[in-house]
Amino acid sequence: MAHLFINEIKAGIRIDDIYMVSQPILRSTTRGDLYIAMYVSDRTGKLNGRMWQATEDVYNMLPKEGFVHIKGRSEVYQNALQIVVDNVSVVPNENVKLDDYLPRTNKNIGQMYADVKNIIGQLQNPTVKAVIAEFLEDKELMKKFCIAPAATQNHHNYLGGLLEHTSNMLNVANAVLPFYPELQSELVIAGIFLHDMGKTSELSYGMAFGYTDSGQMLGHIVQTVMMVNSKAETLQARGVEIDMKVVQSIEHIILAHHGQYDYGSPKLPMTAEAFLVGYIDNIDAKMKQVGDTIANEPGDSDWTGYVRSLEAKLYRRKLID
Amino acid sequence: MAHLFINEIKAGIRIDDIYMVSQPILRSTTRGDLYIAMYVSDRTGKLNGRMWQATEDVYNMLPKEGFVHIKGRSEVYQNALQIVVDNVSVVPNENVKLDDYLPRTNKNIGQMYADVKNIIGQLQNPTVKAVIAEFLEDKELMKKFCIAPAATQNHHNYLGGLLEHTSNMLNVANAVLPFYPELQSELVIAGIFLHDMGKTSELSYGMAFGYTDSGQMLGHIVQTVMMVNSKAETLQARGVEIDMKVVQSIEHIILAHHGQYDYGSPKLPMTAEAFLVGYIDNIDAKMKQVGDTIANEPGDSDWTGYVRSLEAKLYRRKLID
Amino acid sequence: MAHLFINEIKAGIRIDDIYMVSQPILRSTTRGDLYIAMYVSDRTGKLNGRMWQATEDVYNMLPKEGFVHIKGRSEVYQNALQIVVDNVSVVPNENVKLDDYLPRTNKNIGQMYADVKNIIGQLQNPTVKAVIAEFLEDKELMKKFCIAPAATQNHHNYLGGLLEHTSNMLNVANAVLPFYPELQSELVIAGIFLHDMGKTSELSYGMAFGYTDSGQMLGHIVQTVMMVNSKAETLQARGVEIDMKVVQSIEHIILAHHGQYDYGSPKLPMTAEAFLVGYIDNIDAKMKQVGDTIANEPGDSDWTGYVRSLEAKLYRRKLID
Amino acid sequence: MAHLFINEIKAGIRIDDIYMVSQPILRSTTRGDLYIAMYVSDRTGKLNGRMWQATEDVYNMLPKEGFVHIKGRSEVYQNALQIVVDNVSVVPNENVKLDDYLPRTNKNIGQMYADVKNIIGQLQNPTVKAVIAEFLEDKELMKKFCIAPAATQNHHNYLGGLLEHTSNMLNVANAVLPFYPELQSELVIAGIFLHDMGKTSELSYGMAFGYTDSGQMLGHIVQTVMMVNSKAETLQARGVEIDMKVVQSIEHIILAHHGQYDYGSPKLPMTAEAFLVGYIDNIDAKMKQVGDTIANEPGDSDWTGYVRSLEAKLYRRKLID
Amino acid sequence: MAHLFINEIKAGIRIDDIYMVSQPILRSTTRGDLYIAMYVSDRTGKLNGRMWQATEDVYNMLPKEGFVHIKGRSEVYQNALQIVVDNVSVVPNENVKLDDYLPRTNKNIGQMYADVKNIIGQLQNPTVKAVIAEFLEDKELMKKFCIAPAATQNHHNYLGGLLEHTSNMLNVANAVLPFYPELQSELVIAGIFLHDMGKTSELSYGMAFGYTDSGQMLGHIVQTVMMVNSKAETLQARGVEIDMKVVQSIEHIILAHHGQYDYGSPKLPMTAEAFLVGYIDNIDAKMKQVGDTIANEPGDSDWTGYVRSLEAKLYRRKLID
Amino acid sequence: MAHLFINEIKAGIRIDDIYMVSQPILRSTTRGDLYIAMYVSDRTGKLNGRMWQATEDVYNMLPKEGFVHIKGRSEVYQNALQIVVDNVSVVPNENVKLDDYLPRTNKNIGQMYADVKNIIGQLQNPTVKAVIAEFLEDKELMKKFCIAPAATQNHHNYLGGLLEHTSNMLNVANAVLPFYPELQSELVIAGIFLHDMGKTSELSYGMAFGYTDSGQMLGHIVQTVMMVNSKAETLQARGVEIDMKVVQSIEHIILAHHGQYDYGSPKLPMTAEAFLVGYIDNIDAKMKQVGDTIANEPGDSDWTGYVRSLEAKLYRRKLID
Repeated sequence: MAHLFINEIKAGIRIDDIYMVSQPILRSTTRGDLYIAMYVSDRTGKLNGRMWQATEDVYNMLPKEGFVHIKGRSEVYQNALQIVVDNVSVVPNENVKLDDYLPRTNKNIGQMYADVKNIIGQLQNPTVKAVIAEFLEDKELMKKFCIAPAATQNHHNYLGGLLEHTSNMLNVANAVLPFYPELQSELVIAGIFLHDMGKTSELSYGMAFGYTDSGQMLGHIVQTVMMVNSKAETLQARGVEIDMKVVQSIEHIILAHHGQYDYGSPKLPMTAEAFLVGYIDNIDAKMKQVGDTIANEPGDSDWTGYVRSLEAKLYRRKLID
Repeated sequence: MAHLFINEIKAGIRIDDIYMVSQPILRSTTRGDLYIAMYVSDRTGKLNGRMWQATEDVYNMLPKEGFVHIKGRSEVYQNALQIVVDNVSVVPNENVKLDDYLPRTNKNIGQMYADVKNIIGQLQNPTVKAVIAEFLEDKELMKKFCIAPAATQNHHNYLGGLLEHTSNMLNVANAVLPFYPELQSELVIAGIFLHDMGKTSELSYGMAFGYTDSGQMLGHIVQTVMMVNSKAETLQARGVEIDMKVVQSIEHIILAHHGQYDYGSPKLPMTAEAFLVGYIDNIDAKMKQVGDTIANEPGDSDWTGYVRSLEAKLYRRKLID
Repeated sequence: MAHLFINEIKAGIRIDDIYMVSQPILRSTTRGDLYIAMYVSDRTGKLNGRMWQATEDVYNMLPKEGFVHIKGRSEVYQNALQIVVDNVSVVPNENVKLDDYLPRTNKNIGQMYADVKNIIGQLQNPTVKAVIAEFLEDKELMKKFCIAPAATQNHHNYLGGLLEHTSNMLNVANAVLPFYPELQSELVIAGIFLHDMGKTSELSYGMAFGYTDSGQMLGHIVQTVMMVNSKAETLQARGVEIDMKVVQSIEHIILAHHGQYDYGSPKLPMTAEAFLVGYIDNIDAKMKQVGDTIANEPGDSDWTGYVRSLEAKLYRRKLID
Repeated sequence: MAHLFINEIKAGIRIDDIYMVSQPILRSTTRGDLYIAMYVSDRTGKLNGRMWQATEDVYNMLPKEGFVHIKGRSEVYQNALQIVVDNVSVVPNENVKLDDYLPRTNKNIGQMYADVKNIIGQLQNPTVKAVIAEFLEDKELMKKFCIAPAATQNHHNYLGGLLEHTSNMLNVANAVLPFYPELQSELVIAGIFLHDMGKTSELSYGMAFGYTDSGQMLGHIVQTVMMVNSKAETLQARGVEIDMKVVQSIEHIILAHHGQYDYGSPKLPMTAEAFLVGYIDNIDAKMKQVGDTIANEPGDSDWTGYVRSLEAKLYRRKLID
Repeated sequence: MAHLFINEIKAGIRIDDIYMVSQPILRSTTRGDLYIAMYVSDRTGKLNGRMWQATEDVYNMLPKEGFVHIKGRSEVYQNALQIVVDNVSVVPNENVKLDDYLPRTNKNIGQMYADVKNIIGQLQNPTVKAVIAEFLEDKELMKKFCIAPAATQNHHNYLGGLLEHTSNMLNVANAVLPFYPELQSELVIAGIFLHDMGKTSELSYGMAFGYTDSGQMLGHIVQTVMMVNSKAETLQARGVEIDMKVVQSIEHIILAHHGQYDYGSPKLPMTAEAFLVGYIDNIDAKMKQVGDTIANEPGDSDWTGYVRSLEAKLYRRKLID
Repeated sequence: MAHLFINEIKAGIRIDDIYMVSQPILRSTTRGDLYIAMYVSDRTGKLNGRMWQATEDVYNMLPKEGFVHIKGRSEVYQNALQIVVDNVSVVPNENVKLDDYLPRTNKNIGQMYADVKNIIGQLQNPTVKAVIAEFLEDKELMKKFCIAPAATQNHHNYLGGLLEHTSNMLNVANAVLPFYPELQSELVIAGIFLHDMGKTSELSYGMAFGYTDSGQMLGHIVQTVMMVNSKAETLQARGVEIDMKVVQSIEHIILAHHGQYDYGSPKLPMTAEAFLVGYIDNIDAKMKQVGDTIANEPGDSDWTGYVRSLEAKLYRRKLID
């Protein structure tokens, strides 16, 4: 039976389905009765849930963040929908179709990955080819690359977001590179393919999106460079001839792609290739973030609210069809 | 007879040709004899010139910056070429083939302008079309647009540079826009065509490149917006229906295209179109500046000197053919 | 009958008067009954309003921001006054004495405008005179100039505030200029008269204070300069001789009067006149803001709360009579 | 006999007068002969001096900075005047009319000091009066106050400059205060009188202008506050009743008058009086610096060179008589 | 009878003890009954208090911040403990053992002060000795020095905190100085002893921690320097020979110890001693703040929340025993 | 025969020894004769050298930077010593006692390395021990660690400087750690030992000090982290159990030890250990730089010149013996 999505729930209906529950709190009413407040969510939205006549036992059984089967009903309270929970039981993760609960790219992951492989498949330089191949053959990593989000917020913050962002950037680069023939295009393409690879380690996205410990302490830029260095050393240990100047130029692109010290780049761009990858990253991230902010702004005002990371309110009225 | 270019002059030859002279100074030797030091240049380079046994009269006749016919010879002094001037006479500008003396785009100006017109010729929105047409019909302005440099230094700092930069950006935009279909591409194209139009007023480039008084006091960003506003008011005065929201969106793109207050933009980008134009401007300017810096660095070091406006030394070794 | 001002309402009285209503929301009580929460305000203050036993029809009839006739009563709830609304009906704007609802300068607008005209009436330079006259003859604009606020917050944020601020600055300039005789005082006076003229376009103040679309996208600095440019072009088109150097110097004062790129000035001051106008603007704005903050701080503490735009808590104890 | 000022020296005349000599260096010509290069100056200017056929003894006798009687002649070398020194002998400071050698205000010091005393003589608050009187009675300090420069460069950098700057500011304040009647004008006047008093200790100006050790390590802001504190403690020790809140408010004005942490103010303004003193300080300093920069720019260009402390090139063409 | 500390109160017990009350507010319930909400605290924590069936008289009797004897009971409301107050009466401060109500160092104040005196007792330079002795003999000041907090928040923000921080720094300096024998260690030791002495005037800590008026307007850095200057002048007035260069070097250390203009230092370090004191201050403050933040973070997450003054979330998992 | 050091050369003596030559330039005199200008140096200083009557062949034979045997004499020219070169021949590096030509620590390298090994020899945690051991066993790397400079300028910029700096920091840490017992001291010690290890790759110091290509593009912070990561992976590949949390905490210390993004740290400190290592690094670097600047300042002024990297002029007068 198909999952009843949060954004399909109307007021006053029966609920009998699996949802993600988070941040449960045990409270008492003014009369002293215990109840549990919690969030009930899936990938389409999040509602308040209330379980009246709760007990400490039920509360202790609830995960801080996890899947439960909820029986109850929807109602309107203070102008907003909420879920009144009559009965709740924990559901093991393996019984859950995760895709229903975590936001996910609208695009086809397989197709995007094929697109990526097609573009990087045209690279010729032996060192670039060897390093890229080493990544492609790391099946575990490629699986994460295809499913990881590109960020916890701001842009492409959903499953498959990293792949979508990387794939877009590769296509934009392919379109732009012909106008700058003096560039070493293979460094640009390899740099883009790898630039955010460390996000597979920086971010956690099994249940909700967050940062891993190593992600917080090292950051995806350094994690990516470590991966590239490790692959190159592995190749050398296997006797493959590697031009370390080429590897370092790619590592430099990765280190410099945030473009400013304040944004976590320990080195500023020193090659045309590094400048270009930084700009294309910015274009793809900003076009996405502006588009999403405009799409998600409630109401019909011509202006969105202030977006701190864009330092702007956005004007969203279409003037030209 | 063809002009003998500065970069063709060898040591120990006779000189009998027109050059641009600048910054002449009258000095006396330790023995009390007067001589004149000056720069002698054309579009291919600049040398020191020395006129021994000079008089105050000759000095007073020399322009601070202008064309002169020089007779004399070349010699090496302290490891560098210089021109020993035996005789000098002023040449009226109209007798001079200006192109030999000012740096100039390598590309074909007519072809680039045709390319620009072709791209903006596809615009459909009535307001956009009317405003663009008003600019195209301003023949005086279009002449300047085709010949003005894009800057006094850093990038595209030669005759035709503004057109070359604008034309490149339009082509890059055309290549990138298909990946972001939600954008109002006509605003992007119109915004790029107009974004630096005020440089025709900000910069002086009759003889050498500099800033006009109004350029220094107002800046090309504000000058461009004034032009757009003036054209729109003229159209309205003629009874043409103009959607001022469209005009203001284009003016906003122009105001915001430097992306930061510190770079002279009085407004930060508030639309996807304004963000994109700023990034494409950056890509084209930086790719040009990096390329030129690498090409012009003397010696064979793998690194250029520190470039302040890029906050970097550049690595210029080609690693991939 | 005189309007019963918000700051005159005591607890427990009958209400039967016109107020501005804003941000109405339809909610349901825990028992499921609908009610409407809203703000009820005039120029002296704002209270919470509650209409119990409301219907969707009543809610739909209410403007998001507009005038209504309210019948009901005042009561204390959680230590604060609120209005219980029994009956509400929409009132057309033309039936309303707007002055009762929007904050307004305490000074006499006619007298201030006469004062301004008197000061600028002493200007002699033909170009300055012509441009100023063109502004004075734009009756539509002068009407807005007399009534517009100088800001939406911080200082002079009430009807007539722009005129009051401009008039104060002109008087301060007249007092200070004799100490700096080398300045071109006419540029200072003209620069001050015009410096914020674009606020008539940047701000909306028909009902509540906000920014217009063009104000957000272009800003009053650029809008003011466009106005000056447009007037000068109109004069030239009429055959009036205009010294464009003078016009540009005034435009430069306007562009530079915020004194820093971060405050939206695309050019920093390059003339003594531009520096002085910036400082006088700052003096008048800050004296007003400090005075108002001190006056409006509730309680009897010697210190106000932290004011972000002043980067300070203010000490407000009078030490000297 | 009147001193022959540097700016009166023509080429080819005999020199026989006292000048300040500074930075003498002993050098040898290519042929091995010793000569001394030095600067020769008075308050009207500075020239290069050369003493050929010098000896180590003569060199050792010369002060690093001090007065000497020079016999020799003027000549033009490389387009500039220089002094050829035939004979040099040290002159004790007491034999020198110092005013000829150090730059000095054009205004009348006695009159300016009377003006200052007149303005502060109108103060009424007992604490303000007592503290001010304590300063006026410190004859040693007042003597320094009348003669000290206001800075080593930028503005009022000549003898009497501190008094001139303070006197100007008091007059500007008197002109501006009537427009802001809510201010405690006595704090403003006292604050201005005292604001830079510590410059008498921060700067050294016996021979050339520089910083004292304590000036470098503590700075005039802190030195001024120490003076005020010390005077107030002295008064209290004598049994005079002092309102310490008043003293602290004046000290706060002094600490905050640079307006920004980066400019050496350890506290930002927290009172209207502190804001106003900072702005008036800025007006007087900037009007002076802009005026002097324009006046001193050689040549006839409409623009001065870039002035770092003003962040600008200045436009100096008079447009209005 | 021992005080029942806030952190010892369990749900459902009788309360009959003295507590600090703060921020009382009179409110009415929906039914119109009056009640008082307030905070009830001692040095171990703070709880919400509710007095139902309150009257305006009881409310008016309550101090805004002060001691009261409370009779009532504890209960859980909305998952948190609160105090239901049945009866309340004001208690004069002198009847209260203040130590129970204000947070206080865990270390022994007498011992720390002895430790400090021991370290500074080894100083030999006559000026340093004389100035330090003058401070030690100011019994009033030393009493404050022993009891004042080092800050209102961030680090050592409890009674005795200033002494603890100063004592720690002296010990760290003693440990570090042997590795840098070229330093003038007596300046370092004297500088540390005095560096925050002005906090005794900057902070108020009789009842709760805050800033005095002079503290806000002058700041402890300037207040400390004033103290040193005043003591030195007193010594000189008594005929003690004082090397003002030594005093100024200590004052410089004090002025510069925040290391940056933005942190309130009007001078940056110019001596090795000033650099070192700044770093040791930072070490001791940061080690304390990091330690306390980690210790006080509720829950068992490996990460604390974001701490603004540290610009970081802190990782608090112990990895090594 | 002992090398004649540059700082031992007097005027007018015969030269017949090996020196480092750098930046040779071929020039012609006014009469057209060719000569070579060059720098002649060893670890004690650098002089100008001139070879008159030079030929292009001699010039082409000279290394841009390398060792030559010079025959000639010293003379004074323009108040400075220079070397007149009569004859020059290239010397292979292997024939040169390098220590005479490159500046070098005054301390005993063997003893310092033993000291370092002693301190890190006390570490107990298995992961820390294993990683450290892996570094110690990398003989090639340890050799570089003992000889590399810590910087190209500012502090410890001589052979052995990295070891000296690391060794000092370890000793300071050992002295300070007892005062902060809650810290994980083994992370501090391991972090210090490793923190600048990448400088062995970042810097080139075979002949003169500079940056390697990888050093410029990646930087020693990232290069160090790569080394640690590579060693940890090697250990894991050998089956050694490694606690990656411990490794990451050390890597975090390394990444964060510059303390600010602007100084090249891509992560700010998130642990007490990371804060402490950053401060100790700063103390040791600054004490060294201040000490050297004071020692090397020529003349007898109480103040050094302005040092950009310290943002200060330094006061260097000893006030206390």
